[in-house]
Parts: sequence; structure tokens; C-alpha cells
Amino acid sequence: MKKFPTATCLAALLISGSAAAADLAQEARSLKAAALADTTAWDVLESLTTEVGPRSVGTPAIVRAKDWGIAKLTTLGFENVHAEPFTAQAWVRGPEAAEVVAPYPQKLSILGLGGSASTPVGGLEAEVVLFRSLQDLQAQPDGALKGKIAVITQAMRRTQGPDGYGAGVVPRSIGAAEAARRGAVAFLVRSISTDDTRLPHTGAMRGSPGIPAAALSVPDAQLLERMAARGLPIRMRLNMSSTVIAQAQSWNVVGEMKGTTHPEDVVIVGGHLDSWDPGTGAIDDASGIAIATAAARLAAITGGRPARTLRVVMWGSEEQGGSGEAYALAHRQDAGRIILAGESDLGGDEIWRARLPKGALSHPAMQAFATILPDLKVVLSREPADEGGSDVEGLKGAGVPVVDFDQDASRYFDLHHSADDTLDKVDPRKLSQNLAVWAAFLRVTANSDVDFRKTAVAP
Amino acid sequence: MKKFPTATCLAALLISGSAAAADLAQEARSLKAAALADTTAWDVLESLTTEVGPRSVGTPAIVRAKDWGIAKLTTLGFENVHAEPFTAQAWVRGPEAAEVVAPYPQKLSILGLGGSASTPVGGLEAEVVLFRSLQDLQAQPDGALKGKIAVITQAMRRTQGPDGYGAGVVPRSIGAAEAARRGAVAFLVRSISTDDTRLPHTGAMRGSPGIPAAALSVPDAQLLERMAARGLPIRMRLNMSSTVIAQAQSWNVVGEMKGTTHPEDVVIVGGHLDSWDPGTGAIDDASGIAIATAAARLAAITGGRPARTLRVVMWGSEEQGGSGEAYALAHRQDAGRIILAGESDLGGDEIWRARLPKGALSHPAMQAFATILPDLKVVLSREPADEGGSDVEGLKGAGVPVVDFDQDASRYFDLHHSADDTLDKVDPRKLSQNLAVWAAFLRVTANSDVDFRKTAVAP
Repeated sequence: MKKFPTATCLAALLISGSAAAADLAQEARSLKAAALADTTAWDVLESLTTEVGPRSVGTPAIVRAKDWGIAKLTTLGFENVHAEPFTAQAWVRGPEAAEVVAPYPQKLSILGLGGSASTPVGGLEAEVVLFRSLQDLQAQPDGALKGKIAVITQAMRRTQGPDGYGAGVVPRSIGAAEAARRGAVAFLVRSISTDDTRLPHTGAMRGSPGIPAAALSVPDAQLLERMAARGLPIRMRLNMSSTVIAQAQSWNVVGEMKGTTHPEDVVIVGGHLDSWDPGTGAIDDASGIAIATAAARLAAITGGRPARTLRVVMWGSEEQGGSGEAYALAHRQDAGRIILAGESDLGGDEIWRARLPKGALSHPAMQAFATILPDLKVVLSREPADEGGSDVEGLKGAGVPVVDFDQDASRYFDLHHSADDTLDKVDPRKLSQNLAVWAAFLRVTANSDVDFRKTAVAP
Repeated sequence: MKKFPTATCLAALLISGSAAAADLAQEARSLKAAALADTTAWDVLESLTTEVGPRSVGTPAIVRAKDWGIAKLTTLGFENVHAEPFTAQAWVRGPEAAEVVAPYPQKLSILGLGGSASTPVGGLEAEVVLFRSLQDLQAQPDGALKGKIAVITQAMRRTQGPDGYGAGVVPRSIGAAEAARRGAVAFLVRSISTDDTRLPHTGAMRGSPGIPAAALSVPDAQLLERMAARGLPIRMRLNMSSTVIAQAQSWNVVGEMKGTTHPEDVVIVGGHLDSWDPGTGAIDDASGIAIATAAARLAAITGGRPARTLRVVMWGSEEQGGSGEAYALAHRQDAGRIILAGESDLGGDEIWRARLPKGALSHPAMQAFATILPDLKVVLSREPADEGGSDVEGLKGAGVPVVDFDQDASRYFDLHHSADDTLDKVDPRKLSQNLAVWAAFLRVTANSDVDFRKTAVAP
């Protein structure tokens, strides 16, 4: 098998110019070809969704997910496989029901939001006040919603990028707190969804509003709007229960492929192992787990081990928060040796745009990587990476460079955080395109001397 | 306002040939134009789904639906508005839950099938046996499924006509009885659905199999297949309850637009008022109720009342059976005066094909009707009508002619009998196309001397 140059000799080669870049371009092409023929990502995704399914922190499933992660990384040949424990607050769903009792009795389809309070035992019944937007609710004075169930029916725009969700999620994040401040006894929000199914989409809130809060399915929100248009007072009964675990146990599951000449230099890639509870967490984020794991493996075994260490991290509490912070805290001493940290966490649809770390475009290793992008229909952006993903936020704060491989989100919010987040929604060919981009990027990053901290400050 | 010729003078005109046909063609065109501009069908559909919602026989909602029907027909100017009571057996859903307990614990999304038995209190737990088809299950000898939960994961083919459902529904109809005969303690079937949402689709069974029986959502059926492929025994817990009401009250709600010269001759059109419980019965069959009601109204008021009486019937127990039989029984004495009985019961998507009563194609009234079909992209079939709809089955048996306006069913089974059967799934423009076909047909039938009993036997 062809041996690729190690980082040490690469450093020498790079000084002399194009030879190393040509070799790295060849490596990138090899990785792309290997990725498009590899089924590991699909197999990992299928395994996690079938053998574990939903895996919320605070439930026994997160333990099974951790055990699954350790077993899977071990089976795939990773080294130093281990779980790094941490605790985080967890909200665990209990029974939930909602119905209009007057003037038109109908059951509603709801899902409590993370951080929701329970209703009193036996439920609560109150009059509904509808708002077409968060702004309309916020225009109400203090006390104006006293004793009412406040509902926001604002719709979400379908967009390719994060814009639709970025704007759409605000009523879910802060609506309940805003309603509670004005005296509301409960809060409902139209699901932050681009689909029209009767399945509601859950998600977290910023803090705990102290009142019951749930997402309505899109057709249910439209139903309430039509009822409200008739002008009669709407009375609703709501019965929700949940528990909060202040210090729930979770784990960041780690595996490595040790580098040859610079094993102390680490390139991190990951996804998050936890998921919301209604679906099986296929797009959010078994797909990311699958892409990251398969990409690190391929980048390490295709053409012999690279110079630097590849590390997969399966973060253990993204949805409810805490895993990225725990990881950054535990690794604050070695953050300086982390070359880059990347996370795949927007499903399994294709990457349409690559944003590399600042200044990296001119580095020969990145130019080598870029040679595979046109074939994969990936736009190479002039804009530098600035996100990275929730779980690498902490590392980014510690100075670790990140990369953004922007996935097409057009279809993602049809499924996100709902019972519809299941394996059948992932297209294996699109998953492979992700794998090709990540595997090639990891390879050239791990097998060159590229230092994104330096490219970021280069003149 | 222009007065159209009455049936009496039409009979005279028809003898002389083309003049009456031309007038009827003009009426058909007027009705088509009026229908495409009329919002009554949408308004009726919106009203029933918003103000009543799901309306199963055996629940209080069927009473509200009956009251709604009487009020709506009265408001729309119908005469002789009344409800004809009858009783039918009803199955009423209680709480339902299913989960895999080993080897991979996961909750499953199910909906009990009409006629299902309850599990013992506290539920039952048993090993699962999967079959890819009904035939595979039927190949098992007696006793082979003793103590097991039998599951059929057979998929449904999407088709434009009824073929996909016709074949697909058989495992749901008889699978539980076939499983029970072989000793199974419960039965699950992949939803008879063409969609991939996590929402299961319910429906009736032929008879009562004596064991709990439910539909799995499509992704859940696929999940069980993937689990089964791993070769470990699958244990499932099932907890279902329901009640059977031997003689539940329902009503066929009736309204008429009396004819001028031949009021004793009646043209019947309808849909069914009852629905399954998970959705709001928008496509099944508030759409049919809406189309029939709006069409009869338009046919009666556009250009003055026609010669014959137009009667709308909102049948009150199609899903669980009994309304068509009750209607035919109550009207067996006057069946001879019923010129035709039609039912719209395949949603709100477009009519793609018209099949007229046998021999009717050559009648000038039907030729007049046919002039509007090309513009509406309706194929005029040479095949005669042979279905009519479940609720006119009894009348058909009593010799009443029927008509088939075949709707495009391609999308219908994405939604049918599931929580996704909601108003937002109906396209108002497609609903209007249905209205145009029915309104024009009702008009020329009610305002001519066409006698489908005679055309059927003409040489």
C-alpha cells in the first residue's frame, strides 16, 4: 500500500513548494474515492438508531448509548477508547395531553419543551390567548395574560441555511418566560417546523420559565387560529408532567487513531450522542456521529496513519447542554495541542459550502483539500469558519480553531426534534458526500503541518 | 336571471334533438363556471374540521356532527332538513402503548384497529414473529404462533387508482384473524400508508379477531425489520384498551332542494359525516360532505331550480359500517324514484376520470355534461360506473344507478385514517374541480329526463 509522506517530511517538502501539495491533493482524492465507496457511516447510523434509538440525558437510554459508543469505536479499531463522565441538568418528559374544551372540543397534539414545568396534578384549564408573533405577545403589558394560556402561532420559513431556524426558534426559546412574566399560566408555541405533519417538534428553552410549556403540531396551531377567528372564547385543558434531574450523569465518548510522527497534535471531529426523545435521533445527531466516526477512521487507515492523531468525540449532552463545556473544561490544559475541532450536527443532507479556518485558504494543504470540492458540488467560501457547532463552542473559546461544513438545512426542520427523526429520512448517498468532505479534510489536516492558529494571524 | 327549460319541456325538446342538448350544455358550462368561483365547498370543509373535528360513531362528537349537519344544510337553504336515526356497532379507542423491551428497548408508535380486543389489564408481553407478507403468515400451520405477537410488515404501493389500497388493506382486514387462528396473542400490521411519517394509520377489520390488533407507523415497522435482522428474539409489551358499543346511535343527515316539475324524482349525492378519530377527517370525508353539499346547492340555485329534487345525504357511519345499509333499508319503498345515488369519498384531490351509468354516454344530457370535461382534464371513460361508494352500496343493490367520479388517490393514503388527515392537506383549487364536475352532472341529471335504468338496458 502506498505510503503517504509524514508531517515531518511534509514540512520540508512544503518549503520547496508544490510536490507536497500534489501529494496531499492525491491523498484528498483517495479519501474522497474511499469515502464514496465506504458504508461505515451508514452502518454506524443504522446501528445507533436501531440498537439504541432515542437517548435523552436523564434516561437509561443515555447509558446504553455510552456503552454502544465504546463498543462501536472499539470494533472499528479506535484506540484509547473511553468515556469521560460529567453531569448536566436534565429534563425528563412525563405524560402530556392538551385539548380544547370549548367552544369546539378537540384533542391537540403537543410535546412539552425542555425545561417546562408540570401542570398541577389533574391538569389546568384556562382561556387561550393567541398571538401571531412573539412581538405581539411582548407588546402586552405586565399582568395582561393573568390566568391565561398564551399561544404563539408564528410560522417558520424554510431556508437552506440556518436563517429560518435562527429566527423561528426565538418564540420557543423565550416565549414561555415572556408569557409567564405577563401572568400566563401556560404557554404553547407552534412547532419550529417546516413540515405540515401532526407531529409536534420539541426543543429546549432558555432557562426554566416556571410554567408548563409545549409545542403544538403545525396543523393544531392552524386549527387554533381558525377557532380564534370565530371570536368565541377558547378554553383549553392542559395536563403535563415532567421531572428535572439537577445532576444527571452523561459521558463524552472518545476514541483515537494515534498519529505517527506528531501524535501529540490532535485533530478532533465529532457529533453528539444524546438526542431528544420522540424520534430515534437519526438526523440529530446519529448522522453526525456516523459521519465523524467513519471519516476519522477512513482518514487514519487510507494510505497509512497520518502524522497527527485523529480523535472522535461523541458529545453526551448537546440537546440539554453541558457536554461541550464539560469537554473544554476537562481539556483546558491540552487545548493548545488541538489543531482543530469540528462537529457535524445538521443531519445527513449534503454539504453545500465549506468555510475553512481563517486564513487557511492559502495553505497548500487546504488547496490540496479544495481540489475535491467541485466534484462534490461544494462551494468553497471566502468567508472563514465562525461556528463549529455547539459542542466545540467551549474549545473555540479556548482558542481552538474550528471548521464549518455547511449542510443543506432545507429539509432538516421537517424532521428535527420530532418523532419523524428516523433512519428512513437519511439518504445514504448524501451521507457519503458528507463523509467524503470530512475524510479528505481530516486527512490533509492530520497529515500536513497546517497550523490554523498561525494562518489566522498571517499577514 | 336566465331561466333554464324545465324537465317537462326538455322531454319535448329532446325528442326534437339538439336544442335541448345545447341548452343543457350551456347549463353544464354555467355550473362549471359557478363552481370554480364558489367557496361553499371550502367553507363547509373548514367548518366541519374546525367546529367538530374527529367524529367517530360511539363518541359524543358524532352527536355534534349531526347537529352541525342540520345547521349547515339549513343555513345553506336546504329544505326538509332532518336526521334519520339508526344504530350500528361502534368500537371506541382507549389508551394504547407498545414498546420493544428486548433486546433494544424502544417505544413504538401504534394505533389500534377498529374491532381490536383489549389486552389484559396491565398489558401483555410476548415474543414477536415478523412476516414480510400476509401470505407468509398464512403459510404457518395452526398453533405455530401460540403465545406470540404476529407482525406483518408488508408495504403498500402508491397508485393513482384504488389498486394499491385494495391489495394493501388485506393484511389489515384479515391479518389479526389469521394470526389468532394460529395462536397469536396479538397482531400488528405496518400501516396501510404511502407516507413515511411516524404517524400510524388506523382502520377497520373484517369482524372481530378476538385479540389486540394495531397498526404500526411505517418507520416503526422498518425498525422492527432491522431489529429482527440481527437474529435475537424480540420481546414486546403491548397495552391497549377499547370498548365496543353494540348499538351506538348515529344519524344520516338529509337536506333537499325540491325539484319544480318532478319533485318526486330524486337525485342523491353525499359523503360520510363520521370519521376515524386520530385526525379531523378532512380528506375522509369532510371533503366529500363539502363537495356534495356545495354541488347540490349550486345545481339547484344556478339558473333556477331544476325539474327533479336534489337530495344531500351525510351518511353517519361509513368507517365502522351501517349507514348505507340503514339508508337503503329506510328507503326501500322509494328506491324506484331515486334517479341516481352518488358519493364522494376519496378526499379532495382532482377527479381524473368519469365513469357514467351504463349506457348513459349516448344520452343527450350526458353528452351535454361531457362538454365540460376536457377543460377540467377529466377522462371520460367508456367503462360504466360500477362502484358508487360504500354508502350507496345498499341503494345500488336495490337497483339505484350510481356514478363514479374517480379521484386521484396518489396522495390520499399518505394521510388516510391518520392524525395527518387535517384541513391543510386539501388544496382549494382541486376541491373546486370536484365541485365543478359534480355540480354540472347533478344539474343536467336533475334538469333532464335521463333515466339511467333505461339507458342501462337500451339496445
